[in-house]
Amino acid sequence: MTEGATAERGGRRGGGRAARRAAREGGPVRQHGTITRAIPNYEVLGEEGLALIERNADTILAEIGIEFRDDSEVLELWRGAGAEVDGVRVRFPPGLCRELLRTAPAEFTQHARNPERSVKIGGRATVFAPVYGPPFVRDLDQGRRYATIEDFRNFVKLAYLLPSLHHSGGTVCEPVDVAVNKRHLDMVEAHIRYSDKPFMGSVTAPERAEDSVNLARIVFGDDFVDQNCVLINLVNANSPMVFDATMLGALKVYARANQATIISPFILSGAMAPVTPAGVLTQTLAEALAGMALTQLVRPGAPVVFGSFASSISMQSGAPTFGTPEPAMVLYTAAALARRLGVPFRSGGSLCGSKLPDAQAAYESAQTLIPTLLAGVNFTLHAAGWLEGGLVSSYEKLILDADQLGMMQVMAGGIDVSPNGQALDAIREVGPGSHYLGCAHTQANFETAFYRSDIADNNSFEQWQAEGELNAAARANRRFKKLLADYQPPPLDPAIDEAVTAYIAKRKAAEPDAFV
Amino acid sequence: MTEGATAERGGRRGGGRAARRAAREGGPVRQHGTITRAIPNYEVLGEEGLALIERNADTILAEIGIEFRDDSEVLELWRGAGAEVDGVRVRFPPGLCRELLRTAPAEFTQHARNPERSVKIGGRATVFAPVYGPPFVRDLDQGRRYATIEDFRNFVKLAYLLPSLHHSGGTVCEPVDVAVNKRHLDMVEAHIRYSDKPFMGSVTAPERAEDSVNLARIVFGDDFVDQNCVLINLVNANSPMVFDATMLGALKVYARANQATIISPFILSGAMAPVTPAGVLTQTLAEALAGMALTQLVRPGAPVVFGSFASSISMQSGAPTFGTPEPAMVLYTAAALARRLGVPFRSGGSLCGSKLPDAQAAYESAQTLIPTLLAGVNFTLHAAGWLEGGLVSSYEKLILDADQLGMMQVMAGGIDVSPNGQALDAIREVGPGSHYLGCAHTQANFETAFYRSDIADNNSFEQWQAEGELNAAARANRRFKKLLADYQPPPLDPAIDEAVTAYIAKRKAAEPDAFV
Repeated sequence: MTEGATAERGGRRGGGRAARRAAREGGPVRQHGTITRAIPNYEVLGEEGLALIERNADTILAEIGIEFRDDSEVLELWRGAGAEVDGVRVRFPPGLCRELLRTAPAEFTQHARNPERSVKIGGRATVFAPVYGPPFVRDLDQGRRYATIEDFRNFVKLAYLLPSLHHSGGTVCEPVDVAVNKRHLDMVEAHIRYSDKPFMGSVTAPERAEDSVNLARIVFGDDFVDQNCVLINLVNANSPMVFDATMLGALKVYARANQATIISPFILSGAMAPVTPAGVLTQTLAEALAGMALTQLVRPGAPVVFGSFASSISMQSGAPTFGTPEPAMVLYTAAALARRLGVPFRSGGSLCGSKLPDAQAAYESAQTLIPTLLAGVNFTLHAAGWLEGGLVSSYEKLILDADQLGMMQVMAGGIDVSPNGQALDAIREVGPGSHYLGCAHTQANFETAFYRSDIADNNSFEQWQAEGELNAAARANRRFKKLLADYQPPPLDPAIDEAVTAYIAKRKAAEPDAFV
Repeated sequence: MTEGATAERGGRRGGGRAARRAAREGGPVRQHGTITRAIPNYEVLGEEGLALIERNADTILAEIGIEFRDDSEVLELWRGAGAEVDGVRVRFPPGLCRELLRTAPAEFTQHARNPERSVKIGGRATVFAPVYGPPFVRDLDQGRRYATIEDFRNFVKLAYLLPSLHHSGGTVCEPVDVAVNKRHLDMVEAHIRYSDKPFMGSVTAPERAEDSVNLARIVFGDDFVDQNCVLINLVNANSPMVFDATMLGALKVYARANQATIISPFILSGAMAPVTPAGVLTQTLAEALAGMALTQLVRPGAPVVFGSFASSISMQSGAPTFGTPEPAMVLYTAAALARRLGVPFRSGGSLCGSKLPDAQAAYESAQTLIPTLLAGVNFTLHAAGWLEGGLVSSYEKLILDADQLGMMQVMAGGIDVSPNGQALDAIREVGPGSHYLGCAHTQANFETAFYRSDIADNNSFEQWQAEGELNAAARANRRFKKLLADYQPPPLDPAIDEAVTAYIAKRKAAEPDAFV
């Protein structure tokens, strides 16, 4: 048989199977379990290279230092810890940050209000959360437009319904129709009300972080929140080598409340860091070390995650680019650096620069997502729905990406080498020149043997034609609308429901709407 | 800075740069060098698992055996080598195949008629060749249609012009407008005439393989061909555990002529092998071992490549599926098994089941191509242009895939940790709160710092809108037409030209056209 001959395919099979599938889909919300990677971590740089980057990062911390702007309390904390404080610039004696970081947990559980949805962050666990931050949304029907709170709720609902997303995320899109000073309340409320997966708090002002913690206390109870992680929160460094007051404010609120922070240098290489991967890694490590150590100064033992968001810019247009090889090298290596520090790692996702959920979007996303899995990322923001360099949350891409996440989960399981996996009996039964379609081993395993995409079209050309020659985005469009049409909210304790509503009403009444 | 804020982008830069780029593109045909992987190979299965699969493959070879059908000469060779021959079934004493394989080279050079285009196959080298086998072609203008010899020549010309393709391939599409018994002549002629990259010979009948070798002798000279590899040829096992007369005939012609064969079990898991990756790997190893050992019986030292083509089938429709996790696990592991045998490895590519060059095609292709690189594949057929499960050669996808191949080549280079790569001076120069856009290190490195896609659109939304809101496939459509319009053939020695023409005319006149 030559390789052109794949036209010779088995016939269409099994009405009973379609019925079983429909039953699966119509039942209660399915959820894949959490991911425990059984496959090795891939590293592109050996011991020598990693040690070199660590030495260089230590040099940056000692020689150049990091600026902590407009926050005298933080400067005081650093002075007390033995750092050299010069204006807003802090320089760190060799080993100080690493020493402080010893109190940070190597892994921790972020609790969901449905305990079955709680996730482990760290070790060999990998968690997938949706896109974070875009001011726009896009779908095939209405094109690109500013996001509203209705869009926000839709993305929360979809993330709840998609079994490969373990997490509800945070700012799944920016609801610009709600006042800037109040939208965080509606966002946290949506995560509580429309999903039972773990979620993120607001970081755009210290009081909004406080609101996030207070709402979490209503849901989980004060004592539980003080002793457990129920919120994870994104604190970006303002690279190069600056933390600003907004981020420091949020960091302090969450660390004090024993909630998790992700300290993420946000780097477009060539703008916020050198153009070389080793340079990006060095600066990322220095910034993350300083930020993570600060959380331990605020509250020793508070959960903290080493974050890295790194992409390149187009040297022609200055625009960010995604899915190119340089950020993948950074990703693989930053994960290794985090492991050496003994803290969980956040990076990756399904990043792309494309304006549409087309081939460019998919290539670029896969070029980020596969490294995400193989590098051993623990917490993956932007795992689904990211479009146009993070300016757009895409309904169709959320569906397309989620399908890829399901594949990554299977990949993480590795190869089954049990006797059933080895399948020697099947090979003996079938023998030369026959086929495996009906053999006992195939019958026993076919339901679970292969990942089943719910979005790829693998039908015959003729059937695909008869069904309207839809491309992947068009199929995803149908699927997200079906999911939203069938959505049912998870149960919520009426007392919690009432208390959340009351808290938000009180807080909204306390100040006038602000739109800047 | 928070992660929603990527809207803040640098302005459009540099007319001088655009001019330099145009100059680059207008000049002589660019070609990336060959790939020598500096990054580690990724393996999903450890020593214990690999040894288990090897033991099971040996069990298959000894207990079940392999059938060599309709070729008494091959059976005689096996009998002489000490195998147990029972009808067409051959069973192998433990270690026989491995012992025979000791004469096969660990790596070899396939020569191109332009010596600068010769490629190394084996070791840390990775070679990218275009799609092989489809009876149809597709482009956005004319849709899907049967391939013609004009299409064939177009794909050869495009593969010649695309710098990330190192190889001209073989049956880049099946030119169905030429007689079945003569089209191999036109195909080999096209590779000789329209490209100067290395290419593949015909395997569809022993006399067509002979024609391929004879044409190669005209180009390279008889003695050179006898002592060097100038053709590489795809010999599929008819899995499970069968080699048919057609493939055996081609194998013998090429091995005798000291030309390379790729022994590729062609497996859609669940049909031609068990549904489990470990089962697929076991059977693949057994089949490849038997086929590769046979080449050494025919001519010890003849170059041979361990091939693996493995994908799954949809258990709903029976159709082949691509880009799912199970074949990726097979790919990673088969590469490791080939390394343990000390022979070059062929697998992977940009495989997909999609009917269109859309997001499905791209996701699935990347899910095959990234493992191709990380697994350490040496020879990659179907690296660009494959669509619809191998039924279609796509003009646009050839362009899109080739762009990804360029990225893989950069990725293969790994991380530069030289002083320039470390960029400590840049970090010192810029310091906290500034930017790297104009610093000395960026100025010195920006031309080569990042992979530059020639198909991705990373412009602003507004500019993309102004340029017609094209998706990636539409941009690829423009690009392939531009490349074909500007195509100039590489120089060919007039004496060779004449001799090739004469040989083909003589062979075509020798028998009537046959269309089955």
